[in-house]
Amino acid sequence: MSYIQATYKFPTKVGGTERKAEGIALGMTVGSWTDLTEMDQQQLLRHKGRVVSVTEVEEDSNLFGIAIIEYPTVNFSPDLPAILTTIFGKLSLDGQIRLQNISFSSGLAEQFPGPRYGVKGIRDILGVYDRPLLMSIFKGVIGRNQAYLNQQLEAQCYGGMDLVKEDEILFENELTPFVTRIKEGNRITKKAYEETGHRTLYAVNLTGRSTDLLNKARWANEAGADVLLFNVHAYGLDLLQAIREDEEVHLPIMAHPAVAGAMSGSSTHGIDYSISLGTFIRAAGADFSLFPSPYGSVALPFQDVQNIVSKLSEENVWKPTFAVPSAGIHPGLVPTLVKDFGVDQIINAGGGIHGHPQGALAGVKSFKQALHATLAGESLENAASKHRELKEALQLWG
Amino acid sequence: MSYIQATYKFPTKVGGTERKAEGIALGMTVGSWTDLTEMDQQQLLRHKGRVVSVTEVEEDSNLFGIAIIEYPTVNFSPDLPAILTTIFGKLSLDGQIRLQNISFSSGLAEQFPGPRYGVKGIRDILGVYDRPLLMSIFKGVIGRNQAYLNQQLEAQCYGGMDLVKEDEILFENELTPFVTRIKEGNRITKKAYEETGHRTLYAVNLTGRSTDLLNKARWANEAGADVLLFNVHAYGLDLLQAIREDEEVHLPIMAHPAVAGAMSGSSTHGIDYSISLGTFIRAAGADFSLFPSPYGSVALPFQDVQNIVSKLSEENVWKPTFAVPSAGIHPGLVPTLVKDFGVDQIINAGGGIHGHPQGALAGVKSFKQALHATLAGESLENAASKHRELKEALQLWG
Ligand SMILES: [Mg+2]
Ligand SMILES: [Mg+2]
Repeated sequence: MSYIQATYKFPTKVGGTERKAEGIALGMTVGSWTDLTEMDQQQLLRHKGRVVSVTEVEEDSNLFGIAIIEYPTVNFSPDLPAILTTIFGKLSLDGQIRLQNISFSSGLAEQFPGPRYGVKGIRDILGVYDRPLLMSIFKGVIGRNQAYLNQQLEAQCYGGMDLVKEDEILFENELTPFVTRIKEGNRITKKAYEETGHRTLYAVNLTGRSTDLLNKARWANEAGADVLLFNVHAYGLDLLQAIREDEEVHLPIMAHPAVAGAMSGSSTHGIDYSISLGTFIRAAGADFSLFPSPYGSVALPFQDVQNIVSKLSEENVWKPTFAVPSAGIHPGLVPTLVKDFGVDQIINAGGGIHGHPQGALAGVKSFKQALHATLAGESLENAASKHRELKEALQLWG
Repeated sequence: MSYIQATYKFPTKVGGTERKAEGIALGMTVGSWTDLTEMDQQQLLRHKGRVVSVTEVEEDSNLFGIAIIEYPTVNFSPDLPAILTTIFGKLSLDGQIRLQNISFSSGLAEQFPGPRYGVKGIRDILGVYDRPLLMSIFKGVIGRNQAYLNQQLEAQCYGGMDLVKEDEILFENELTPFVTRIKEGNRITKKAYEETGHRTLYAVNLTGRSTDLLNKARWANEAGADVLLFNVHAYGLDLLQAIREDEEVHLPIMAHPAVAGAMSGSSTHGIDYSISLGTFIRAAGADFSLFPSPYGSVALPFQDVQNIVSKLSEENVWKPTFAVPSAGIHPGLVPTLVKDFGVDQIINAGGGIHGHPQGALAGVKSFKQALHATLAGESLENAASKHRELKEALQLWG
């Protein structure tokens, strides 16, 4: 049988957990059971939610129930809005409850596309296989003109970044329209590639009305854009999937975590980050998932980040999604990043590049020096003695 | 100047609130300020977020900052995904912070449609002006066939409900396809109207892939559907607006609160219910907004419900949206509902109708008896002495 399993955590009292779990399994599916006729029970059996397991844990003298409930796919259409409504629709409104984990049966998982490219496909585009990729962002984009963006993009391409992404708050505007940003980004990345032999992918922010997104994405595809950045949580997961599945759009998609904290930021309510920035993002088809790193000022707990990365990379029917731990990243963190998240990740720096005492180009160099040393098993201290840019970065950020 | 104002609440330390507020105003717009040249400052001034006010409150010996920040509309396109990303994008990921309130300048508000019909327009359709409307739902829809739904719908139409809505968990399925439900709903409501002179509107659940929604809505419109029920929070607010604005869809829209608890259920994180089920729903164009009543087992705090109702009805450029306090509603609550939320609301009952000792038809009657008595200034006890159905309902639920 095809199904989705959902794990919930909720406050409980000794002995009340099983009953609460049964209440969810029934309330979110057939409504009631014991008062049904035997004939009705037979008819509804394959629709009934099933309590897979129930456990209780004590935390700070509070007792919590953890229940895994299985919902048969016959109850819903194979789309993420139907799944969200089925497993956490009215239940999300029912006091303190946290959706901790979800698990698709393989029959259900196959109905979702997963990433078009995934880690391997993105590496094939770039021709880079043996190291984490390096990504940078712009410094200040609101109210700035195209020449300002171009200048920053050039420095980052010639410096040797693998990816450069726009800010998620850069919308359609007169100074730097979507169309112009794609054309200019294309021109600059192409020129830098021809001159340096290093390829940089430019991620342009796909924004506007939902009903215009596919046409804009098709246009971007046609115009030679590299990657689409998308504020999936401001739009809806199903629109991410629609872009992924559109036959005329073959662009990698970078999912931005903006607004995800609204549903995932609390530890007692809402939906775990491993779902919102992990499972759902991968199922719907993003090639990259950005999330707060565990190191910066806007930081997630380390365990949360590990859970996200695990959901993005664990073996299943979908290609793996590139993990992009973001915010608070500076060159001194590169050994930690590699130790914690391995080679298949994207090291994404903003302030750590633009805040370098010698400017952005030196910032890019310092990251490359730190990465090269780390992969060679060399200490950063040692590498810094040979590279001025890394030395100054370490002096500033440690 | 056109703008949106956002009110945030966050833990703070004495003296740190102003700095935190300034950090938000800059971080969510131009990024930095004091290190900019005077020329840059001139160029960016109209893009800079502005701290409107900062206050501090103590709750349970914890100090909270409350900051109102104003974002100029020049920074974003006039759509809800851009607004969400601008006011709560990366900020939602930044530890404990709650988006408490939002306020559109009139120039911005005019760029959102609000409801097509609103309270007055729905009353015009029904020809009912002087009382709350009565709505009922089905009992158990998953795994049931069309004959089962028809039978329930008939009882509710002939009983005299103003609206009957489907369950939010009823998706496209073989037993009761969308197309059939609309046709059968149409047939039954029409027949009942011809025979009783009482009009019942049937709300059909619009589900499926985002890219199919507008076509399905157009089809429903063409086929004579009455009202579209929509799980807006499982899809995205902008899709609600797209349905509202579609030139070929003239159907009232009923916004279901499913999944809204994921972003609004916590009191410390996420987005206040008055925004998710109030301001946003009205701006995007729903004619009805369902939300948990303050009375049932799935209940919201009374103040939260009042805030939602206030946002749905306060005077502004948009037509008012019908408030639908739901869950836990039985006839004995009708006087309280009318006292708390007035005449312009929808009394929405499920168990309070289907759980009546004498069945659903008696359930419907008991609600009408309670409503009639309440509006006439008669006590329910008095009315119950004359009406058997109400008497039994009060005996059961109080
Ligand atoms: Mg290119
Ligand atoms: Mg009709």
